[in-house]
Amino acid sequence: MEEFDCRAFLEDRLRWVAARKPLVHHITNYVVKNETANATLCLGALPVMAHALEEVEEMASQAGALLINMGTPYPDLEKAMLAAGRAANRAGVPVVFDPVGAGATSYRTRLARKLVEEIRFAVVRGNAAEMAVLAGMEAEIRGVESISTGGDAEAVARSAASRLGCVAAVTGKVDVISDGSRVLHVGNGHHMLAKVTGTGCMATTCIAVMASAGEPFLEAAAAALALFGLAGERAAEVAGERPGSFHVELYNALYELSTRLDLEGLRVT
Amino acid sequence: MEEFDCRAFLEDRLRWVAARKPLVHHITNYVVKNETANATLCLGALPVMAHALEEVEEMASQAGALLINMGTPYPDLEKAMLAAGRAANRAGVPVVFDPVGAGATSYRTRLARKLVEEIRFAVVRGNAAEMAVLAGMEAEIRGVESISTGGDAEAVARSAASRLGCVAAVTGKVDVISDGSRVLHVGNGHHMLAKVTGTGCMATTCIAVMASAGEPFLEAAAAALALFGLAGERAAEVAGERPGSFHVELYNALYELSTRLDLEGLRVT
Amino acid sequence: MEEFDCRAFLEDRLRWVAARKPLVHHITNYVVKNETANATLCLGALPVMAHALEEVEEMASQAGALLINMGTPYPDLEKAMLAAGRAANRAGVPVVFDPVGAGATSYRTRLARKLVEEIRFAVVRGNAAEMAVLAGMEAEIRGVESISTGGDAEAVARSAASRLGCVAAVTGKVDVISDGSRVLHVGNGHHMLAKVTGTGCMATTCIAVMASAGEPFLEAAAAALALFGLAGERAAEVAGERPGSFHVELYNALYELSTRLDLEGLRVT
Repeated sequence: MEEFDCRAFLEDRLRWVAARKPLVHHITNYVVKNETANATLCLGALPVMAHALEEVEEMASQAGALLINMGTPYPDLEKAMLAAGRAANRAGVPVVFDPVGAGATSYRTRLARKLVEEIRFAVVRGNAAEMAVLAGMEAEIRGVESISTGGDAEAVARSAASRLGCVAAVTGKVDVISDGSRVLHVGNGHHMLAKVTGTGCMATTCIAVMASAGEPFLEAAAAALALFGLAGERAAEVAGERPGSFHVELYNALYELSTRLDLEGLRVT
Repeated sequence: MEEFDCRAFLEDRLRWVAARKPLVHHITNYVVKNETANATLCLGALPVMAHALEEVEEMASQAGALLINMGTPYPDLEKAMLAAGRAANRAGVPVVFDPVGAGATSYRTRLARKLVEEIRFAVVRGNAAEMAVLAGMEAEIRGVESISTGGDAEAVARSAASRLGCVAAVTGKVDVISDGSRVLHVGNGHHMLAKVTGTGCMATTCIAVMASAGEPFLEAAAAALALFGLAGERAAEVAGERPGSFHVELYNALYELSTRLDLEGLRVT
Repeated sequence: MEEFDCRAFLEDRLRWVAARKPLVHHITNYVVKNETANATLCLGALPVMAHALEEVEEMASQAGALLINMGTPYPDLEKAMLAAGRAANRAGVPVVFDPVGAGATSYRTRLARKLVEEIRFAVVRGNAAEMAVLAGMEAEIRGVESISTGGDAEAVARSAASRLGCVAAVTGKVDVISDGSRVLHVGNGHHMLAKVTGTGCMATTCIAVMASAGEPFLEAAAAALALFGLAGERAAEVAGERPGSFHVELYNALYELSTRLDLEGLRVT
């Protein structure tokens, strides 16, 4: 296996995104709609938020990627997610899933499992507990925060990828991304990312933008997480331990990285 | 026709708003509720967000203006929009409409057309494609982004205004505002406004605030867009090509313009 | 009665929160979900937003505190609020209520009254008009803004506390907190807090975080409001009359106060 040249891969994808401005259809939670739309714009793509059953199939079919995030689940949203996911699958549009809070309540666990059964995902990204729940492993989660899991992140990623038949991205101190056989590790990131809500959701948005250019999804997911983690590092250089400023600088850094392609410091192995 | 003295008009309206603190009732999308509420406060008005059928008529009737934005449409919201719009019409409260994504899906197109048929709007603001769709012209739209239209912005604005029987504001590089016979052009604005989500929605909020003082709505809409565009220019002077900082500075600039009435640089013809 | 040492109390509670990271379950409005989640994180607690009837009882039962905010009320939300509140009551989880806009429409007034009848609250926080409405007094409110009440803040707080059988926090220039017999006054705050939407909601979030450590709720509410007001003062020192920057600095200040425990300037009597 050749080594993965993350920087060259990212440069290609970011140039592709800048040229095509892919539409990224989000069906996401009510906490991060504005934030993930802004992250999408920072990367050069176009966000659209639409969750009415009346329009999600039409919107998803014309999108470059569909992102489903179950952070604030609701029965009506569930129907829209299923319809949009199936329409995207039929149209060959990559679908990315963020199973926020799987394991926190039995409703979320059931919903997450139903979605991975009914929709063919390109990438599923979650914290270790959420991904362990989807892999059928033990996990402890409180609210939407991972507390502990029955295995290490690599075991969880491999197991989730095999079980779900897609790329599994387990994010944490080190992000572990696997397609079931290969595994990539991303060392980029910063502890201040945990002090701003929705940064996990934004990471998934980055994956959806990178996946809109098509396969390979293992590399696309790893590159997206490395880019997002690097943006976190750059933001912290400016903002330090100030979460309000860090949040602002995170968009600045994502935009600067995406437009200037000044990608020193990626740590993917 | 006298020339429009935008600066004097804006000074008058901003003083009126500061003195009266009009309530601006928003029925808007889930992406920009916080952002448009903050824009309303920056201008000196009071925002209220309410979308339950159980209360929208009562809220709209006591408001200074009602803003309907269909950025994340939903069947229940549709009923609330119709009820609120009719109640505002009965009470003589100006109603402003932002047809986000009209043309992007058949659901949004139908909804936008229904709203303009059933509600008497003071001003409708959209991008060229959205407004062309409402004017019955050709247009290409992807998600909520205008790609192309069958005519230039002025033709779209005139045609939309005539067809809808209200002031039509077509925003883009130059904003074109028409009541069907007269046309005003606003040259203020900045390309960074396209790098932050919801700036179109905030522009519509500015129109609603300015329209709360009553007719003439052509001038009110043009003045509001000039003010918002000028705020974008001022924000970019401080923030440059940094979308996170630009977003923050946009509120600072709106507030400073509204409170200090330091309105140099308006470009309305 | 001993004098209340607010600083020592806050230091204890903030250390407790930092060690335990209590989960604060919010059922809140669509305007401030992101902002109150970030305020929760700044204080060292973990936010979770969940409003589906299918999961709110399970989520509320495992939380450190439940916050119910009716800023954008809706019939479905009402059911979720009632179910979550009762579940929290059964589990001994403190419940905090923010009756946003009570008095502004008859729907909100009915809803607020129903919630205080059916749920046992630890603390209810609102502006003078909202609290007067709950206390059965005269009040004038426009949208979600208090205009005037039939009594002064202290009379409203005492009366609301007695009638509701819980701690009542009436916020304004000076915040007045009462359990019906004792009264505390908080002098911290800044006029720029009124220029950013959702700061009242964030204040209630601070109360919920402080209440998650249990009784005494009178002191917990006063300490939370003093902390939040002090954060506003600190933010204004950096940001001045710039609402965008003030909003950013407010998170910075909350985080710095909570992590460094540098609590000079609390004004509670």
